[in-house]
Amino acid sequence: MARDPNCVFCKIVAAEIPSFVVYEDDAVLGFLDVGPLAEGHLLLIPRLHVRGFRELPPELAAKLAAPLPRLARALAEISGSSGVNVLCNDGSTAGQVVPHVHIHLIPRRDGDGLGYRWNAGTYPPGRAETLAARFQEVLSRPR
Amino acid sequence: MARDPNCVFCKIVAAEIPSFVVYEDDAVLGFLDVGPLAEGHLLLIPRLHVRGFRELPPELAAKLAAPLPRLARALAEISGSSGVNVLCNDGSTAGQVVPHVHIHLIPRRDGDGLGYRWNAGTYPPGRAETLAARFQEVLSRPR
Repeated sequence: MARDPNCVFCKIVAAEIPSFVVYEDDAVLGFLDVGPLAEGHLLLIPRLHVRGFRELPPELAAKLAAPLPRLARALAEISGSSGVNVLCNDGSTAGQVVPHVHIHLIPRRDGDGLGYRWNAGTYPPGRAETLAARFQEVLSRPR
Repeated sequence: MARDPNCVFCKIVAAEIPSFVVYEDDAVLGFLDVGPLAEGHLLLIPRLHVRGFRELPPELAAKLAAPLPRLARALAEISGSSGVNVLCNDGSTAGQVVPHVHIHLIPRRDGDGLGYRWNAGTYPPGRAETLAARFQEVLSRPR
């Protein structure tokens, strides 16, 4: 749907709820996260109401991504940070709270205690081959 | 540069190092992360050698993003997960290890111990206004 009347981000797009806008174009809006993980933490959202990342049409995913590198450069400059995390939480299990797609831009500095919990594993012999074959099967389906 | 002879991901693009490819098009390559955080953890990279997310031209950022929702849907289906994190670590401070842009797709389930460390703050009065003005200033510069 174009707009969800109960969605806080749709209300921000419509300027019915105030926000600190830093970027906008025909397709997207970028603004400060008011619950920042670090100073300057940004959100970029499509103007259109799309609940989750997996529901984005490819064209809209592309429009959402195009301004991100420039926004990340501005964020690093303004926050004086050397790194940036670009993150989308898709689904409540993944940490999504507002059900309107949003991309986080989070500035990073050494020892800030932020970042993704990393506990990498390995595949037992043959498992990666099986998984890759499953992906090829699923992705070869007519869309 | 088009290719870095010392880059492990450039070698994967050139098939000089084997990988478990799940997706490819003219601009990007998707494959299994061999150090997965969870079964099915994918990486999507540009074929072109670009060190960090902030250095991506907008057109290439768009090409990198376009297939991501479809890959995330396939990942959720194959891994039986209800959520997905889409993550780019830009810069070593942000957790980037291989200096060739890569987007992580990480399947999520309840209680998996993964996810981003979330410790949200708030802005003191006036601070968000100042920051937003700084962004508008930086982003209004001729590119």
